[in-house]
Amino acid sequence: MENKINGVYLVTDRPLCLHYHLAEVVRLAALGGVSLVQLREKEADSRTFLELAKNLKEILSPFSIPLLINDRLDICLAAGADGVHLGQSDLPWWEARRILGNDALIGLSLETKEDFISLIQRNTNPPLNYLAVSPVFDTDTKTNTKPSWGLQGLKWLRSQTKLPIVAIGGIKESNAKAVLEAGADSLAVVSAICSAKDPKLATETLSAKFHF
Amino acid sequence: MENKINGVYLVTDRPLCLHYHLAEVVRLAALGGVSLVQLREKEADSRTFLELAKNLKEILSPFSIPLLINDRLDICLAAGADGVHLGQSDLPWWEARRILGNDALIGLSLETKEDFISLIQRNTNPPLNYLAVSPVFDTDTKTNTKPSWGLQGLKWLRSQTKLPIVAIGGIKESNAKAVLEAGADSLAVVSAICSAKDPKLATETLSAKFHF
Repeated sequence: MENKINGVYLVTDRPLCLHYHLAEVVRLAALGGVSLVQLREKEADSRTFLELAKNLKEILSPFSIPLLINDRLDICLAAGADGVHLGQSDLPWWEARRILGNDALIGLSLETKEDFISLIQRNTNPPLNYLAVSPVFDTDTKTNTKPSWGLQGLKWLRSQTKLPIVAIGGIKESNAKAVLEAGADSLAVVSAICSAKDPKLATETLSAKFHF
Repeated sequence: MENKINGVYLVTDRPLCLHYHLAEVVRLAALGGVSLVQLREKEADSRTFLELAKNLKEILSPFSIPLLINDRLDICLAAGADGVHLGQSDLPWWEARRILGNDALIGLSLETKEDFISLIQRNTNPPLNYLAVSPVFDTDTKTNTKPSWGLQGLKWLRSQTKLPIVAIGGIKESNAKAVLEAGADSLAVVSAICSAKDPKLATETLSAKFHF
């Protein structure tokens, strides 16, 4: 499996799947060229979460598109997913790396510059597959997030690290090019695909931004 | 570590810790002779959950009292806890056994006779460390539970299996003896210890019921 992090990155949100069920949104995004999918479930019980993860893994495997699980290492292990996306209040990344091993994809959300500084103080070359700048712009999808990084913040992080950077938060067709030019390797979206009337087209449109 | 399941089993509930913080309740229960502790956290984020688990593990290790984690295998792995307690909507027990290995303690809650029948249909000799009859009596601690098993239900399960049986739900000093006589190996309590003015004494009083 290609572990390079770039292209369009879909973060799922079932309540935001307005026109199709989650599985169909994911299938359409795969057809549209999505490069990575993160299953995020904040309310589901573990059994339901696992069933969703197995289902998405089945959909994505033929496309060789990795599936990451938000927060839950155990769901990742049980579903045979490719890795986890960790926030600052999730399990520490070094525990995740220890438990999941070297082949797992592990991404870490940074909410502030201080998060990056703590990370680097702990390990100047952390074994992470990407850093997520979250949120780049203000958004309605996630509540209680800290002030957005903005393009300047993203540029700052780009100057500080060679790790792939995933940008998330308020990304849409109109600002995608500017986010890539500021140094993001990957554009993560929730509603831009989940709520789209045509998730395949929405994915294709965002993917096209990578070929400028 | 002694893996026999018997004696008093404390299931934690932070909001029900009325007189002491959780860690102190657990320490006092350990001094009072508790045999097993399950950390149950339904609201905490993963990082907080892990910190609590590590803290309890540190308290319990000198007593050689096992710590189980409710539902979350990943917290169990990261904290070096002894196993997990699984409900019917948690990860399947066979996935937990596969991921945690043969040495882990794994207990499964049965809410109905049908849950037991499904279990036995899958595996006539399931590699589980105990079955929990939940709830034995009606209780205010857990909401939305199915009808209680009652002593008759507990006796029925006793007649069906040689696995250790943990009884949970509405257990207190006054009914403990009857529950043990109906076939339980272990008495699991939440508020009887968490909310006690003297958690050590409460644990000792319940422990004494095992020596009749």
